[in-house]
Amino acid sequence: MTIRYPGGRKYAATTNANNKIKNPKILQYANRGMTLEEDLNTTNQFYRETSRGVIYKKPTPIQVVHVDYPRRSAAKITEAYFKKPSTTDYNGVYRGRYIDFEAKETKNKTSFPFGNIHVHQVEHMRAVQEQGGISFLIIRFTQLQETYLYDVSCFMEWYFNQAKRSSIPKKEIQTSGISITEGYRPRLDYLSAVDKLYF
Amino acid sequence: MTIRYPGGRKYAATTNANNKIKNPKILQYANRGMTLEEDLNTTNQFYRETSRGVIYKKPTPIQVVHVDYPRRSAAKITEAYFKKPSTTDYNGVYRGRYIDFEAKETKNKTSFPFGNIHVHQVEHMRAVQEQGGISFLIIRFTQLQETYLYDVSCFMEWYFNQAKRSSIPKKEIQTSGISITEGYRPRLDYLSAVDKLYF
Repeated sequence: MTIRYPGGRKYAATTNANNKIKNPKILQYANRGMTLEEDLNTTNQFYRETSRGVIYKKPTPIQVVHVDYPRRSAAKITEAYFKKPSTTDYNGVYRGRYIDFEAKETKNKTSFPFGNIHVHQVEHMRAVQEQGGISFLIIRFTQLQETYLYDVSCFMEWYFNQAKRSSIPKKEIQTSGISITEGYRPRLDYLSAVDKLYF
Repeated sequence: MTIRYPGGRKYAATTNANNKIKNPKILQYANRGMTLEEDLNTTNQFYRETSRGVIYKKPTPIQVVHVDYPRRSAAKITEAYFKKPSTTDYNGVYRGRYIDFEAKETKNKTSFPFGNIHVHQVEHMRAVQEQGGISFLIIRFTQLQETYLYDVSCFMEWYFNQAKRSSIPKKEIQTSGISITEGYRPRLDYLSAVDKLYF
């Protein structure tokens, strides 16, 4: 018997000879172990299957240096390096509009640190907005199990602020952002938050 | 002396002691050697720099199997494989609309063979269109130095046709598609063709 998550990933619990689950405790807390990226991939797959939107995570940019061809059909990359992304991780189309966003988790309970957001990514989000696209961040406070959609205009006000802060207070994200509800299908219904904020 | 293409790539010609170019013939025909992908990357960079549109080529999807960490800062990928793309190569935003396309070259002079277009990519383009996005192919006949923008609706009529053809006649692409003019900046002005067909 194989239990699968919505995304198709196998559930890890094993069964004994009577087909009873040995460790039911894992099932109960299964979702807690899923990262924001996994939740979004599951959600995007659900959105595509139900024709709600066509949104994908972009592949990680990799610089390929050397490729071996052990057999004619199979190319094996033997030397490559991760490149710094110049755009955001997710984009696609929803209700005729272009959607573009970056997703970030933080363990911090009171603020969201800028640390992992490169200036190139912020410039990209600004350019998207100027071209008439919808651009935002999805921010998860992992310790609190809270996830927010936060518009890039609000974000830039803090990011490019004279005061040279290194983070945004969580209170501000709660006030100006939209809380994203977690569920089963879709796992993380961020397009409902998009509806509220942009349509 | 270094001559650079618009994209920043170095020009290969070497100079002698008097700083005169040894092989001026290469300069004259330089652009002929550029692939469709190089032309599009150069063009997209120009579009972004002039705020005309925000369109990127997606990174090639790669399955990373093993990573070495010789130094703390540098991660070296030592085993990885190319994955088949499930979407198209290019997407972005232009005049508020979502743009999504696949670019293909053919050496054939009379027709465009379906060979390199996976059914998943066509399904993706159909889904994009249903969501209100703009989706098309850019097709170059390399032997004739002609490039066309061809809408995905026209493409699907041939691709899913009962007759089970394996190609589209060039005449049809000339008639229903829009010819893309080649120039210096932008190198391949496909957004003007988008203007004509969709706005």
